[in-house]
Amino acid sequence: MQNIVIKTNPNDNVAIVASPTGLKRGAIVLNGIVLEEDIPMGHKVSLQTLNEGDAVIRYGQNIGFANKIIEKGSWVNESNISMPQAPNLADISYVQPKVPQVESLKDFTFQGFKNADGSVGTKNVLGITTSVQCVAGITSFIENKIRKELLPLYPNVDDVVAFNHSYGCGIAIDAPAAIIPIRTIKHIAQNPNFGGEIMIIGLGCEKLRPERLLPDTRNQLLVTGGLVSKQSDSDNQFSSNQLPINQSTNNQSSILYLQDERFEGFYEMVDGIMEMAERHLQKLNQRKRETCSAADLVVGMQCGGSDAFSGLTGNPVSGFAADLIVKAGGTVFFSEVTEVRDAIHLLVPRCETEEVAQKLKDEMAWYDNYLNQGKADRSANTTPGNKGGGLSNIVEKALGSVVKSGSSPIVDVISPGEKIRKKGLNFVATPASDFVCGTLQLAAGMNMHVFITGRGTPYGLNMVPVVKVSSNTKLANRWHDLIDFDAGPVAFGQKTIEEMGWELFHLILEIASGEKKVATDKLGLYNDLVLFNPGPLT
Amino acid sequence: MQNIVIKTNPNDNVAIVASPTGLKRGAIVLNGIVLEEDIPMGHKVSLQTLNEGDAVIRYGQNIGFANKIIEKGSWVNESNISMPQAPNLADISYVQPKVPQVESLKDFTFQGFKNADGSVGTKNVLGITTSVQCVAGITSFIENKIRKELLPLYPNVDDVVAFNHSYGCGIAIDAPAAIIPIRTIKHIAQNPNFGGEIMIIGLGCEKLRPERLLPDTRNQLLVTGGLVSKQSDSDNQFSSNQLPINQSTNNQSSILYLQDERFEGFYEMVDGIMEMAERHLQKLNQRKRETCSAADLVVGMQCGGSDAFSGLTGNPVSGFAADLIVKAGGTVFFSEVTEVRDAIHLLVPRCETEEVAQKLKDEMAWYDNYLNQGKADRSANTTPGNKGGGLSNIVEKALGSVVKSGSSPIVDVISPGEKIRKKGLNFVATPASDFVCGTLQLAAGMNMHVFITGRGTPYGLNMVPVVKVSSNTKLANRWHDLIDFDAGPVAFGQKTIEEMGWELFHLILEIASGEKKVATDKLGLYNDLVLFNPGPLT
Repeated sequence: MQNIVIKTNPNDNVAIVASPTGLKRGAIVLNGIVLEEDIPMGHKVSLQTLNEGDAVIRYGQNIGFANKIIEKGSWVNESNISMPQAPNLADISYVQPKVPQVESLKDFTFQGFKNADGSVGTKNVLGITTSVQCVAGITSFIENKIRKELLPLYPNVDDVVAFNHSYGCGIAIDAPAAIIPIRTIKHIAQNPNFGGEIMIIGLGCEKLRPERLLPDTRNQLLVTGGLVSKQSDSDNQFSSNQLPINQSTNNQSSILYLQDERFEGFYEMVDGIMEMAERHLQKLNQRKRETCSAADLVVGMQCGGSDAFSGLTGNPVSGFAADLIVKAGGTVFFSEVTEVRDAIHLLVPRCETEEVAQKLKDEMAWYDNYLNQGKADRSANTTPGNKGGGLSNIVEKALGSVVKSGSSPIVDVISPGEKIRKKGLNFVATPASDFVCGTLQLAAGMNMHVFITGRGTPYGLNMVPVVKVSSNTKLANRWHDLIDFDAGPVAFGQKTIEEMGWELFHLILEIASGEKKVATDKLGLYNDLVLFNPGPLT
Repeated sequence: MQNIVIKTNPNDNVAIVASPTGLKRGAIVLNGIVLEEDIPMGHKVSLQTLNEGDAVIRYGQNIGFANKIIEKGSWVNESNISMPQAPNLADISYVQPKVPQVESLKDFTFQGFKNADGSVGTKNVLGITTSVQCVAGITSFIENKIRKELLPLYPNVDDVVAFNHSYGCGIAIDAPAAIIPIRTIKHIAQNPNFGGEIMIIGLGCEKLRPERLLPDTRNQLLVTGGLVSKQSDSDNQFSSNQLPINQSTNNQSSILYLQDERFEGFYEMVDGIMEMAERHLQKLNQRKRETCSAADLVVGMQCGGSDAFSGLTGNPVSGFAADLIVKAGGTVFFSEVTEVRDAIHLLVPRCETEEVAQKLKDEMAWYDNYLNQGKADRSANTTPGNKGGGLSNIVEKALGSVVKSGSSPIVDVISPGEKIRKKGLNFVATPASDFVCGTLQLAAGMNMHVFITGRGTPYGLNMVPVVKVSSNTKLANRWHDLIDFDAGPVAFGQKTIEEMGWELFHLILEIASGEKKVATDKLGLYNDLVLFNPGPLT
């Protein structure tokens, strides 16, 4: 293999070492540039001598300034570049973009589960949600019991999933930020894969009344809210001061309280929940896969454990697939506020309207303030693994991260815990933390998850399929049973981004149809969901 | 049964309805007081007519002011009383208390597992901790595999427990508040029940380096820190910017990285962890129960799902048992900042030194500020269940809550996530959230948990036994297989607090010895641990 380095943009003055074993001092790359030192795979080599203060350019953008002379052929990393300021939100003005003529893609379909509300599931799952952590021991017990004793009787149901979160009691439920975890739990229960047959297990004395987790009677699409925008969610219809003295569990309802006086001890509670589960399983078992348009896909894009290849391979390939889904009339979202913050000047011009652009900037501003209150800033995002993988700072990471959004216009911005309202490309504002982002993307309504990784993570979710894309072939080979799709060949020109984007699009349709299983579903490897709760505990 | 109401203190102008079915309008109580309305069990009846603005007195303390005329015999609840201000911390001065001559209790023992560091376990558990949530799928898989395949070969080991928390990545690890979750994870790994044989599973690219979770080489008792006091913890010895490129998993170490290049896929990771587990199980299997002094008990007291009886029965009985443990030379802690805040004027005088009193006030002030930043206050503590159970507000709840600390001097105050440093009665500053408090009490080093409840909760922990005490017999009867000890008989004078306190003390020794199992251990009902992380996500 040659001494391969990759330049992303003609204006770049650094390139990425692509050789899997890195390159040694003395190696010759590009137009005769001689490496001054050993450089690991994924790390940057300087293509010209940089003086102190010179901009380091990757993706055609400034990712930092040399903090000393960097000779041509030297290793450029976080030790010799300093980070630029984040783009000033007030400086980014909006111009209505010309709407490009996009040919729409037709005739792409998958076999999904149609729901009464118009959404489509990619799995058929019995969901058990909870209004408080105290009940987790019992719901875990029940989840196992249903899987063993009931699921074999309902062959059309794929799985049973209990959502044991940390919220519900010991929290300041009337604090302004409490709306985020509450609507997250509520909206996860409405995920298309549950088919509207969610069960809610409550204790009885908790602050989060289980009734708050039921769907609104009003049309869901009218529910607005947002952390930034004024809350007009109907969540407030239930007072947290209700006395639940006379609560009772209605046999036909979807809510069961463990403190219900009709339960004499643990095994009666279990019997009560099992009875309720049977009622829901009977309904879920009637669901059958039907031919659905690719327009029914709702795909959440996320990356985690990124390296310098993520922005070259996995993210552009996923971005191309994202464009295909949008062209087919479907929905895609990307997230991770701290990973788009430094590329915000590239995203604002892609917003469909000024209102959307403003909401995007508002979410950035909210997060700037949130980090500031906690005495942190966006630079807290990059991990040791990112740096080990060649990403010097959050600017470089962000520029590579947003590539997975493709090139479609951004039609809407969704606050943490909200559901999507429009088809097309959405920005769903979440922290970058993998499990928190995944949790909020579930609440937003995704029925398929694409997760791009360079360093490797066993991350998986039990509610929707997670397609794991590797940014480099070295990882895909080593983690042969944990990676679903290798975007590595793009790095060496063996395949084009376009070819691999189409391959990924087709794979997504096969997985959505239940024809193929993702690695984490084969192995049964699932992370816990983790709520975003910026509010205080009590 | 008579129309029983209970007055806690001679100065009280309200009493608690003790009759299990409540009392009806027209019922006659005490000195001929006629009930003006139906009053449920656990709720307050006015013993005299109160004018608007009059203080409502329970436990001899002001729990609020009548917000309208309350006729003698009326129901007193949150709708007709308003809450007093929290005691002003600056107004509470400290006077060194006379040290009472306390006869020490000798000759009480239990059969425990002695550890090299001087601590004593009440169970023999293989602990698996993690440096990041991404690995949770694999550690859950491994936990089951070890339980099925390995535990039967090591009969002296009681269980295997994986601690899958939400921390480690996507967090601002250099924010000031990050020290709390980090030291919590680290100190839980040092819980006496793990016998120093903890395993740490990391991914490899996370911000929380697994090495930070190893015990300090310095004497643990010297580790100080605290949220309030300046941090002098050695946690800072590891930079979060280390490049882990060349990390390797030492075969003999307690740390394993899933990204270690020697693992080709999932099943090799599993084999690697199973090998490591066998090494630790061989050592744990050599542990045998030995006769230990009651002075080796470290008992965490907590209440959850409280009702108005909690302060009359469960908490005073537990407080009496707490005094016995302290007299025997053991350690007890109580917690839950928002549930002691309104009784702080009763606790400051009990502090052994002025320094301890100041630290207690500092922790209250920190929490006041924390709630204030989140636009909440201490009144956010009380739950619908508390109110349904007769607790009108946080003042009444706090006065009943602190009773479980008994009457011993407070020898030390421990910040969230810290380990205890002294034997005797400690205040361990935690949120009142049941699962968060329990998690922080595990980090502080408890080997036994006493949990008092009036409304009922299936709460249980898999690391230490949880003795569940009911405040009323009605609950104990209904939840016959979930409650370990019924303190209800105190309410009707069938037994004294002293008698039942001794019974609970003996029960604790039997459970600590492994002679009796608690209800949640019999049923295998366990809550997840939940970290206290006041810092931001990224």
